[in-house]
Amino acid sequence: MSNSDRQYRRQSPVPIDKCGAALATDIMSDRWTILIMREAFYGVMRYDDFRADIGIPRSVLTDRLKRLVDAKMLKRVPYREGNSRTRYGYALTDIGVNFGLPLLALMAWGDTHLAEQGSAISIVDRSTGKKLKVALVPEDTPEVRISGVKIVPN
Amino acid sequence: MSNSDRQYRRQSPVPIDKCGAALATDIMSDRWTILIMREAFYGVMRYDDFRADIGIPRSVLTDRLKRLVDAKMLKRVPYREGNSRTRYGYALTDIGVNFGLPLLALMAWGDTHLAEQGSAISIVDRSTGKKLKVALVPEDTPEVRISGVKIVPN
Repeated sequence: MSNSDRQYRRQSPVPIDKCGAALATDIMSDRWTILIMREAFYGVMRYDDFRADIGIPRSVLTDRLKRLVDAKMLKRVPYREGNSRTRYGYALTDIGVNFGLPLLALMAWGDTHLAEQGSAISIVDRSTGKKLKVALVPEDTPEVRISGVKIVPN
Repeated sequence: MSNSDRQYRRQSPVPIDKCGAALATDIMSDRWTILIMREAFYGVMRYDDFRADIGIPRSVLTDRLKRLVDAKMLKRVPYREGNSRTRYGYALTDIGVNFGLPLLALMAWGDTHLAEQGSAISIVDRSTGKKLKVALVPEDTPEVRISGVKIVPN
């Protein structure tokens, strides 16, 4: 192998079956799935609200919700409206809540590079009211847990 | 609307055409696209290396690379191996480099919740050698730019 070969022939250092990002794409396999998780993160729980917000076809929504429940990202929760019978909605599990961090990182990236008018929301520390950001910081930096976050429209 | 209705009928506060995360899913529309960006982030640039690393069919790889170039996430760069003719590979643009943060956040989430043996890599500050993490921190916290990061196998 010549020097220039060595320069260009680079393999990914981590095989995809050992990489968290690659494994995550097995679950986050299409844009609908990410959009559903985004809704759930905002507190949407009713089937019809998911459908209305993101304009997803019924068959796809049903399938993706089932997959997200199977993957332990969402759990089914009972609710009742007025006097009607008990129905089931969807809420984030702990694993799902933790998906908030990649989701917020994706949102910040999209807001910076794709949104015409910048960010539509701010992420705020629920206890201090301070604005937050997703960032790369030294491992020992104190961080705010995703469960301690409030989303505020700008 | 009864009280209990008000409790459950929650709409997402940001319509999907104004949300960076939703806009991002237009580009990151399937798992192949995320896997390709992951490779590019590791420094893979040759068509055949992408193909070998992630086992993606040719037609899909060609299509997704074109989309990523159109979306200004990747750029085509000329390279030569030995005495052979000039060929073209793919490298991250600045927008693509910045996608490293959501990608690392996704990786950390997957490593924690999906990988059997934890993380296969560490993220290290190129200048200080300190281990880094993706975290929610107050807006004024000093952060390490994604371009200042080195990936080290564990």
